Amino acid sequence: MIEARRELLDAAPWLHVWAEDVRLPDGRLIDGYLRLEMLDFVVVVANAEAGIVVLRSYKHGPADIGTSLPAGYLEADEEPADAARRELLEETGHVSEQWEELGSFVVDGNRGAGTVHMFLARGAEPVAVPDPGDLEETEMSFVALEDLVAALKDGEVPVLPMAAAVALAAAHLR
Amino acid sequence: MIEARRELLDAAPWLHVWAEDVRLPDGRLIDGYLRLEMLDFVVVVANAEAGIVVLRSYKHGPADIGTSLPAGYLEADEEPADAARRELLEETGHVSEQWEELGSFVVDGNRGAGTVHMFLARGAEPVAVPDPGDLEETEMSFVALEDLVAALKDGEVPVLPMAAAVALAAAHLR
Repeated sequence: MIEARRELLDAAPWLHVWAEDVRLPDGRLIDGYLRLEMLDFVVVVANAEAGIVVLRSYKHGPADIGTSLPAGYLEADEEPADAARRELLEETGHVSEQWEELGSFVVDGNRGAGTVHMFLARGAEPVAVPDPGDLEETEMSFVALEDLVAALKDGEVPVLPMAAAVALAAAHLR
Repeated sequence: MIEARRELLDAAPWLHVWAEDVRLPDGRLIDGYLRLEMLDFVVVVANAEAGIVVLRSYKHGPADIGTSLPAGYLEADEEPADAARRELLEETGHVSEQWEELGSFVVDGNRGAGTVHMFLARGAEPVAVPDPGDLEETEMSFVALEDLVAALKDGEVPVLPMAAAVALAAAHLR
């Protein structure tokens, strides 16, 4: 239970950092435990006829070019499933009528840092020209799921939520 | 390329937040892009005779009790593989002689937030009484990998790096 909290940083809308005084279930009090409030986001594993729809672009987290998946922050009052459909269409021009939830997970086990909602879209089909609106130039392609899983270990999918979604989809589709 | 950076928050050793002015590969300049510097950590999927070694404890990220895996921050100058061995022994009392890397991933694709190194330890065996030294009371048990994978979708493994390690191990062991 949180008995008190003090804001350490307001970098809205991306990040709020709080110091929380937390009463643990066993009664002890932890002083000033850091909590990160960040935007929730979605990641989409879209299975099209030619393979999983992947994007190749520069990402500033790893500071490198790598393979990623359609993904993005939830807009205000947007449901995760709606955000998944929107991001898939915006970033890849694809739609799907067969959506499944792969799970929702808190990013940081100790400090929060937002929740990622992961989706699998089977039978994805192109209906539009992609308009990712990202900061980076993005190149779309298609990769067989087994090749994408193999690429995880080689560091070709350098970002955790993307790698997790690939592995979850593989576990789910097997 | 980072042309300039300003520190917004120093919450050492857990968190530093920076605003970075980033020159993109295409030449555009992005002002004040947030970067989170956080500690790198390890997560271990240990396969013992009775199943995968799991821990059940309160975590303040999801603010709930859930299933997790042996994990922890790297100590100063510690190699990820050494941290993995140390955390497995400390938190579960197990050792293994068959270690494999499942991959290393940047937690936040846009902002960094540390790197997680994931390991698979086959043939794990108990040699000591666990001494997790965590804030929370922790209960160790063993779960078949397929049951753990099924639990991912039900939210029983609420924390992303743990869920990702389970799914990666499943993809790896299949």
